[in-house]
Amino acid sequence: MPHLTLEYTANLALDPAAALAAINAAAFDSGLFGESDIKSRALRLADFRTGIEATERAYAHVRIALLGGRTPGERKELADAVLAALTAVLAAPPGHELQLSVETVDLDRASYAKAVVHG
Amino acid sequence: MPHLTLEYTANLALDPAAALAAINAAAFDSGLFGESDIKSRALRLADFRTGIEATERAYAHVRIALLGGRTPGERKELADAVLAALTAVLAAPPGHELQLSVETVDLDRASYAKAVVHG
Amino acid sequence: MPHLTLEYTANLALDPAAALAAINAAAFDSGLFGESDIKSRALRLADFRTGIEATERAYAHVRIALLGGRTPGERKELADAVLAALTAVLAAPPGHELQLSVETVDLDRASYAKAVVHG
Repeated sequence: MPHLTLEYTANLALDPAAALAAINAAAFDSGLFGESDIKSRALRLADFRTGIEATERAYAHVRIALLGGRTPGERKELADAVLAALTAVLAAPPGHELQLSVETVDLDRASYAKAVVHG
Repeated sequence: MPHLTLEYTANLALDPAAALAAINAAAFDSGLFGESDIKSRALRLADFRTGIEATERAYAHVRIALLGGRTPGERKELADAVLAALTAVLAAPPGHELQLSVETVDLDRASYAKAVVHG
Repeated sequence: MPHLTLEYTANLALDPAAALAAINAAAFDSGLFGESDIKSRALRLADFRTGIEATERAYAHVRIALLGGRTPGERKELADAVLAALTAVLAAPPGHELQLSVETVDLDRASYAKAVVHG
């Protein structure tokens, strides 16, 4: 951990490699995590919908799953930093409303299982 | 929020745009959310498995992530309404058992970060 | 439930069908679930990043979502069994560090909605 998942709607011009580099750097700079523990992925959403009106909209969302034990303040600072990193690499398409959001979620520490293998 | 994620196995004949319109409408009709706050995506599962037997099976699942503070009754009504909407747009393939499910999960309100940008 | 989600980075040589069969069997052997209730999917991550350094890395992660009421010991045994199953079907690419992890998460039982349809 942490596991970061970036979802972005397909109407956004986003470079996933650059976006993941940016959010990983933000997570690392928080000082909360070991460098190699930060694992992220980007998912392009081909099928998406915001609301029920036929308005031009886009969204990007990051879910940060981390082991329990962080303070509320640490979680909020982390989410704000990742949101800032995401905002810096994304622009709303012309005429669109772009919603950006970041959530943090606790992983269950007691049952978390992990192994590292070297090839 | 809310963030809705529809997953469906690739052996289902589902129109993702119609399905998302249906579940967004059900979420909006609950009266719990602002119209533009309802953000959904559909993920087609090319690689899936139900159980361990070689039976013809399919499933669709919706995860509804919402900010804390809803009552258990509100969450149950919302899940039931989304399940009804999903059921209305899906049919089991001939000879298949189709499982439909809806979960609700609380987002951590204290750390949730959001921004809106206009293009 | 349970819903199992296997994510694996695209630099891994993994047979998703074999991997899902292995983790479903591990879940079934736990004795905690009905056979047909075990629903899994595999997601290949084309866009991923571990950490901030330019090192060759890979990861695979399983999220097990199950209805509340399992003991901590049951959850830990389940996660360990699924991790063992995953380890058995995966090898680290030459020169790579491969991180494997398994989490369990409680679904909200009170609002969970489900239906079964036969085609």
